[in-house]
Amino acid sequence: MNMAGQMPRSERIALNQVRIRDDFWSYYIELVKDVVVPYQWEALNDRVEGAEPSGAVRNFQIAAGLEQGEFYGLVFQDSDLAKWLEAAAYLLEADANPELAAIADGLIDTIAMAQREDGYLNTYFILKEPDKRWTNLTECHELYCAGHLIEAGVAYYQATGKRKLLDVVAKFADYIDSVFGTEPGKLAGYDGHQEIELALVKLYEATGQERYLRLGRYFLDQRGQQPFFFEEELKRRGGKTHWAGSGEHVDLAYHQAHQPVREQETAIGHAVRLLYMLTGMADVAALTGDDTLLAACRKLWDNIVGKQMYITGGVGSMPQGEAFSFDYDLPNDTVYAETCASIGLIFFAQRMLRITPESRYADVMERALYNTVVGGMARDGKHFFYVNPLEVDPKACGGANHKVDHVKPVRQEWFGCACCPPNIARLLASLGEYIYTVQEDTVYAHLYIGGEAELQVASGKVKLTQTTDYPWDGTVCFEVEPEAEGRFTLALRLPDWCPEANLKVNGEVVALEGGLFQDGYIRLQRQWCAGDVVELNLAMPVTRMYSHPLVRANAGKVALQRGPLVYCLEQADNGANLHELVLPREAELHAEREGGLLGSLVTVQAEAIRLSGPDWDGGLYSSSAHLLEQAATVKFIPYYAWANRGEGEMTVWVRERY
Amino acid sequence: MNMAGQMPRSERIALNQVRIRDDFWSYYIELVKDVVVPYQWEALNDRVEGAEPSGAVRNFQIAAGLEQGEFYGLVFQDSDLAKWLEAAAYLLEADANPELAAIADGLIDTIAMAQREDGYLNTYFILKEPDKRWTNLTECHELYCAGHLIEAGVAYYQATGKRKLLDVVAKFADYIDSVFGTEPGKLAGYDGHQEIELALVKLYEATGQERYLRLGRYFLDQRGQQPFFFEEELKRRGGKTHWAGSGEHVDLAYHQAHQPVREQETAIGHAVRLLYMLTGMADVAALTGDDTLLAACRKLWDNIVGKQMYITGGVGSMPQGEAFSFDYDLPNDTVYAETCASIGLIFFAQRMLRITPESRYADVMERALYNTVVGGMARDGKHFFYVNPLEVDPKACGGANHKVDHVKPVRQEWFGCACCPPNIARLLASLGEYIYTVQEDTVYAHLYIGGEAELQVASGKVKLTQTTDYPWDGTVCFEVEPEAEGRFTLALRLPDWCPEANLKVNGEVVALEGGLFQDGYIRLQRQWCAGDVVELNLAMPVTRMYSHPLVRANAGKVALQRGPLVYCLEQADNGANLHELVLPREAELHAEREGGLLGSLVTVQAEAIRLSGPDWDGGLYSSSAHLLEQAATVKFIPYYAWANRGEGEMTVWVRERY
Repeated sequence: MNMAGQMPRSERIALNQVRIRDDFWSYYIELVKDVVVPYQWEALNDRVEGAEPSGAVRNFQIAAGLEQGEFYGLVFQDSDLAKWLEAAAYLLEADANPELAAIADGLIDTIAMAQREDGYLNTYFILKEPDKRWTNLTECHELYCAGHLIEAGVAYYQATGKRKLLDVVAKFADYIDSVFGTEPGKLAGYDGHQEIELALVKLYEATGQERYLRLGRYFLDQRGQQPFFFEEELKRRGGKTHWAGSGEHVDLAYHQAHQPVREQETAIGHAVRLLYMLTGMADVAALTGDDTLLAACRKLWDNIVGKQMYITGGVGSMPQGEAFSFDYDLPNDTVYAETCASIGLIFFAQRMLRITPESRYADVMERALYNTVVGGMARDGKHFFYVNPLEVDPKACGGANHKVDHVKPVRQEWFGCACCPPNIARLLASLGEYIYTVQEDTVYAHLYIGGEAELQVASGKVKLTQTTDYPWDGTVCFEVEPEAEGRFTLALRLPDWCPEANLKVNGEVVALEGGLFQDGYIRLQRQWCAGDVVELNLAMPVTRMYSHPLVRANAGKVALQRGPLVYCLEQADNGANLHELVLPREAELHAEREGGLLGSLVTVQAEAIRLSGPDWDGGLYSSSAHLLEQAATVKFIPYYAWANRGEGEMTVWVRERY
Repeated sequence: MNMAGQMPRSERIALNQVRIRDDFWSYYIELVKDVVVPYQWEALNDRVEGAEPSGAVRNFQIAAGLEQGEFYGLVFQDSDLAKWLEAAAYLLEADANPELAAIADGLIDTIAMAQREDGYLNTYFILKEPDKRWTNLTECHELYCAGHLIEAGVAYYQATGKRKLLDVVAKFADYIDSVFGTEPGKLAGYDGHQEIELALVKLYEATGQERYLRLGRYFLDQRGQQPFFFEEELKRRGGKTHWAGSGEHVDLAYHQAHQPVREQETAIGHAVRLLYMLTGMADVAALTGDDTLLAACRKLWDNIVGKQMYITGGVGSMPQGEAFSFDYDLPNDTVYAETCASIGLIFFAQRMLRITPESRYADVMERALYNTVVGGMARDGKHFFYVNPLEVDPKACGGANHKVDHVKPVRQEWFGCACCPPNIARLLASLGEYIYTVQEDTVYAHLYIGGEAELQVASGKVKLTQTTDYPWDGTVCFEVEPEAEGRFTLALRLPDWCPEANLKVNGEVVALEGGLFQDGYIRLQRQWCAGDVVELNLAMPVTRMYSHPLVRANAGKVALQRGPLVYCLEQADNGANLHELVLPREAELHAEREGGLLGSLVTVQAEAIRLSGPDWDGGLYSSSAHLLEQAATVKFIPYYAWANRGEGEMTVWVRERY
């Protein structure tokens, strides 16, 4: 294999190495285990009364010859099941669960029976258009579904050691490898929805077979080359499209297929597609030592995070195409900010962290996780947001102004469209992967989430016990227990939101001086002994946040953040017409723990001003401002907790006076 | 005819009674005569190189048997020609123009030859779907096109005394009368696009035939009655629709057919449809003494003007459906505010004024005219806006953020879609109709536009000569010349924007005391002699305007207005990133006449503040505001004049500091 050689890169940390015991997160992870995954299994089996049928399990049963019937659902229906299986695998990796394992094993048997002789495995094409394989990669998600199956196969193997699904997906991948490539007789194509690239890297890592890595790299290298495959393919189909309403013209940029991936400098097109692609690009760059690919990752990271990301970690500001728009264009009301896109951003950040542990990646991972992702699911585990607005007027929703038809003022039942809910499930079920990385003799703590981890550093095994009341409190304790006394570095992230930190090791203050910092981490290099205790105190004041001055939507406005949590005003606490509220720059901001509110959280109160017009008599326009200026105590809650008390207005950005 | 009897109502003022000689308006009216109407004739005959063919004239020639070929264009293509002919008629009413008259006469001959034996006249259905007459009123604009032909026939008759087209359209109307109605055997329908209602009133007034008024009233009475005609009609067509993408469901509210017209209280649906309907409703209410119909007009007027109108007189805040959205929802960037909708608002205002001369109607008429309508056309007479935004960032247009795909940052050539340009033409060509009304012994001056008018009051004929440099200066002189000395009232509108006025009659100050005012007019009742001179001085300061506090989009913002003109900031004068500018409430506002700028206009300068971030180093979000605060002299220009100096940002509403 003609590759330049690997870059140093942290290994994946298995979920049985990291046990989360955390007031904030354990709730959600238990919810995934007890509610989301079981409930979703019922839905995938069409056993939830009143819910839209899924057909996903049955499609595989029919393809396996176990049932009679026709394919049901969308062309990418298989991926729902694959994501569910991946989430189940993560649960099984963390904890034994014989009942779930039995269900999963049974499902895998069915999947294996559905596979064709040559390795092909996609129930839509097997059942509905058997002679149309690989004829519409632009629209039909064929390799996307393959990628999700591969991820499931790898996850299940990692979780259980069982090879059955891994072998199935490896055989499928071998078949795909025989079909795709630039060699004569092969199809020089790639998928309309990126996903297989990152999946093939996982398959390579699970099997050690370089051909999968090579195939993943091929899909990236070929993307955006001329002549454009999607245009050629459309010609071959005589202009026939899969989706009604899609026309003669392929929007190449929507698929990030308008340029070779190494030449792309600005985030454009469908957000999830781009972020899955970047995740795969970072993986391939690291494993093949491809600096130009890594440079493209960094450039696009900088563009996304520096110019196109909401303060909540949401990305994709445009509902049309669920897409990025352009630099500094971050409207709060017409926003898309799909939950899946923030999950993709977390994947991408994780991969970048595994290559170069710089806190800026973890900062964004944390921002997306604590705001958009956890906000994407209700506390009941059964209601979800696909779109995560930063400003909502429910009067406008539901058709009153069609520009916000995509915005729902309350979370919806998850089975209307099934892409985000299982994505949240698989992310939360695998959260243990995201907390630490180890690179040579350094353990990096990226996220502050309580629990135990058993990690392998150069000098040997070490157990870390993290204790914290994060995100409500900035005190984080680590108890360090190396198997044998040894010298290594514990690197603790200093979050971007933290203005002041202090540190004690075994009760003694360690001065946080320049030399101790590198790339945003406090690096404690020492001979660690069992029982060593590190206490990190991160000052967590409520902070006024401002947008870059080119962000038109937020000019003159302020948002509050405390720790990793972005705050918002809701009608439930502050009455209607939130746009009438103005927060003086000098107003004191009081954080207070409210145990009884939405599962216990810290609220922020302030003395604001309400500019209203009870006596306004000027019609719609008037030459005098006529406004009544009243003191108004306002209460902010964490953004993730919004819309749990019925329908009402919400806003993250508030007018400021100074 | 079982009608309660007419309400007092001003007669239409013929255009040969009013000769406009005005620095501001004569330019536009000459432009219509010399450029717009001749140019459009070429376009309608498919003789403009590079322009999309129209087919409108040829369709009539084919239907008349003068040409061979097929129908070309949209289902409502006939209306383009009708509106052109109506504009031509107004020009001919004002001034002799043998060349234009010859063209129009020739066209009328063709139209007459195209008419079927039974009176039917619509080239789409004659040529393309002869067996489908009256089967799709919802979508096919059949009565809408008829209405425009009727308006043209009436206008041409009024202008020239020639009956040929009037007879053609009367025959068509008689045929329509035989088809539609609630009587057994008739079709109890009405059109998807209102227009015929107001046209039938004009036909009644031109012919004196009450059946036309009765038919117009029928269309209004029947609209929105249950069972809903559009739903029944769709069933009869087996669900077949005319436009691709229109589905099984009829959006009744889009057509204002969801409720009987008298029960509608909130402006909803397609803006032009509603305003044409209201124009017809006001006419029918007056001519039949129908108080409930007039009450509905007033209620909807109040809703539109009091809750759903932009400060520019634009209406319809939503591009989807070119429609009203909901109360106080007036986004500046995603706005629609179609030029035709403001023209419709002017029609409606005129009809209300003819019934009840209250200045509030004329105030809105003036606002729409001086801002959206005149702004809808470039100074070359060849470029037009359909959409009239109040805030534009050209970076977002052209697909970068699809939510503003409908917004063009510069005026487009008029023949891309042909509805607004001929509407502007016919309005400007008939502007003389809108300046005065006469009711019994009172002459009302609604608009301040220089020129001469010969009016008939109870006591006899009177000639008024109006001289003014309006809208730049608030001094307006009237020279009064009654044919015979007589007692009558001259009522001069005191505009809503004017904080202070004074008045002289023959050089002597008249104290403007309470008794002199009524419904917004200064009423000068006296024995007028030839040579009497009235001088009205309207103070015309630059005024800060504020929106009702429930208008979310304008919270904390101010707009400038001077006289009837709303102002805006343009990038050409103020650089990019207009959102960075803040206007202090105490800043002095200097109005200055600039003779060389865009045909001479008054600009407004002020010392503002620019909050920019040349040294911003906080990435996309930062905990410190970091903004450089610099004094910035800003220059506002009248809104109507924007986008005449290339592509750039524009905003009407500016952040205010106080």
